[in-house]
Amino acid sequence: MAKLDRVLADPDVVSVQELALAARNHGMPLEAMHYDITPVGLHYLLHHYDIPALDPVGFRLRLGGRVRTPLELSLAELRDRPAMTVPVTMECAGNGRARMAPRPLSQPWLDEAIGTGEWTGCSLAALLDDAGLLDDAVDVVCCGADRGTEGGIEQRYQRALPVAEARRPEVLLAYALNGAPLPPQHGFPLRLVVPDWYGMANVKWLTDIEVIDRTYDGFQQTHAYRFRHDVDDDGTPLTRMRPRALMVPPGIGDFPSRARQLVLGPTVLHGRAWSGSAAVESVEVSTDDGTTWAPATLDPPVGEHAWCAWSHRWEPPSPGDYRLACRARDAAGDAQPGSADWNTGGYANNAVQRITVTVVDANGVAPT
Amino acid sequence: MAKLDRVLADPDVVSVQELALAARNHGMPLEAMHYDITPVGLHYLLHHYDIPALDPVGFRLRLGGRVRTPLELSLAELRDRPAMTVPVTMECAGNGRARMAPRPLSQPWLDEAIGTGEWTGCSLAALLDDAGLLDDAVDVVCCGADRGTEGGIEQRYQRALPVAEARRPEVLLAYALNGAPLPPQHGFPLRLVVPDWYGMANVKWLTDIEVIDRTYDGFQQTHAYRFRHDVDDDGTPLTRMRPRALMVPPGIGDFPSRARQLVLGPTVLHGRAWSGSAAVESVEVSTDDGTTWAPATLDPPVGEHAWCAWSHRWEPPSPGDYRLACRARDAAGDAQPGSADWNTGGYANNAVQRITVTVVDANGVAPT
Repeated sequence: MAKLDRVLADPDVVSVQELALAARNHGMPLEAMHYDITPVGLHYLLHHYDIPALDPVGFRLRLGGRVRTPLELSLAELRDRPAMTVPVTMECAGNGRARMAPRPLSQPWLDEAIGTGEWTGCSLAALLDDAGLLDDAVDVVCCGADRGTEGGIEQRYQRALPVAEARRPEVLLAYALNGAPLPPQHGFPLRLVVPDWYGMANVKWLTDIEVIDRTYDGFQQTHAYRFRHDVDDDGTPLTRMRPRALMVPPGIGDFPSRARQLVLGPTVLHGRAWSGSAAVESVEVSTDDGTTWAPATLDPPVGEHAWCAWSHRWEPPSPGDYRLACRARDAAGDAQPGSADWNTGGYANNAVQRITVTVVDANGVAPT
Repeated sequence: MAKLDRVLADPDVVSVQELALAARNHGMPLEAMHYDITPVGLHYLLHHYDIPALDPVGFRLRLGGRVRTPLELSLAELRDRPAMTVPVTMECAGNGRARMAPRPLSQPWLDEAIGTGEWTGCSLAALLDDAGLLDDAVDVVCCGADRGTEGGIEQRYQRALPVAEARRPEVLLAYALNGAPLPPQHGFPLRLVVPDWYGMANVKWLTDIEVIDRTYDGFQQTHAYRFRHDVDDDGTPLTRMRPRALMVPPGIGDFPSRARQLVLGPTVLHGRAWSGSAAVESVEVSTDDGTTWAPATLDPPVGEHAWCAWSHRWEPPSPGDYRLACRARDAAGDAQPGSADWNTGGYANNAVQRITVTVVDANGVAPT
């Protein structure tokens, strides 16, 4: 298997190349965890290549390869199929990359590459049933209309799912987000939505599905989106989202430093938590830099494949700086690590988030 | 007048503090110049503080100060007033800041802090008429619900317009964008829209309008958003957008470098142009790093206060690297400079955009 010799970025500073990516691809400002369903425009975005502008009238989804009956469907035909709406929490596989040291050179995410969309579409499993998978079907390759070069190779963005994953009942061919047609930047007119997996599986601008009789070995499967501890490691493919809790930074923020300030008194710390492998079982909060932890109150999840809200009442004892943290554990027993599980691609960093807040008295003063 | 001693950033690299801003505040990917009206989620965003979540039911806009009849209006009352819809091209005053050297420390925009929204709302002038401006009215102070600290001062985001500007017929109290209620990140439920001015005038989450009998001296008017060549310079306030043309980078892009590659053959270079002071009169294109310029074809503007599309047919003579540029001139005679007009806040950098593209032959090969 080919290896990807990832370029490392300067640990202390960000390059103009990374900045150009950050100006295009944006996170979800953490205060938007206020919303069960992320309003359009606040959900994170990560595009490898340019956003294509597709004509919905001429649009056809082609499904072929190892099937009995190849299919070709217009958007109207896809909309005529039984529809389902699924709230899905999605996180970029590279979320937290910019908190790694050394930092792999790619989109420099801090903590915000998240969002929860209410996706509407038809079942991929039902479409595969209609086409009739042949017995030797192994992988379902999904190809987007976005095109560029990567690792020296010209390509359209393509990712595969093993047949068993593609047949999960909640995997969607989505044509709507939050009750409206997909916006261009979320894959108009059609995208794949794979609940519980990291974002790379959710192919946007989906035009072609090819069922193949072997394990797919395309660039985004064998070079990118693999968890490797060094470049000689073949690694393992990224799949489901690791458990994670995030906190809305409390108080008010400074511009441009984003430093937080909170007036002394009772407050409610809150945020969201999710895991791609199992339900979130607990969220714990620390207000003393991880020395002690207290359980947060968990709300029911927004959906079977979506985050839940958590909250924790806190009354700081006195003015001063506090280091806050939160951590989730899921029903499969997976919990967040204290520090990043470093890997060459900078993927799946679910290390505990830490926020410094300065508590001030009623006059806005904190001890120095 | 107080001076702002702006902090300069490292010229070659971007700090994590700037990255944290870039992850929240995003530009418009330049290929979205494809759309006359920017789809929601692609329009640029710049927030000084956290995005507030306002309750539309309890919402009231208060208008007071130097008026005969102070007013308080619900959202329904604002919607009952005569409505107008105005396409408005908006650009952040800090667009191009990250291309300055040295670079002032703030949101590190490259070229993308732009967008064109179709805003619907009621006239500010008509509301001021209903309230009845007193003879000594000088400035109209607009206050948003977003709160934070800046320059050591706790504040809500506030900006003033001189009465004559506030009374321009196209200045809107907008409750809708592109035919739908404002999204939270664009100021739900109400924002000020001041066509032709840089973005800082378009106060989001607008709750209070105060008419005063003197020139407003708040932070965002006297410290920020002034054009100063050094910190001892009182400077001049930023108002209308300078003329600018931008090009959609041609060909396909590389991930993560964003380097461009184009196959040899005829192509059409295209983009948008606008100016806040007068109609765009011409756009010129250079394909030889500014040595020669050719006129582009201009489409009619999308609206009186919105950009126009331009295009220019180009057939590169042979494979190799080309340095492309475009520049606009408006009917007031203002044109874009070749390099940035440096200022301490990094504002209004309308220096000519330059794009390098590698033209390859049909086999994807370029001379080295």
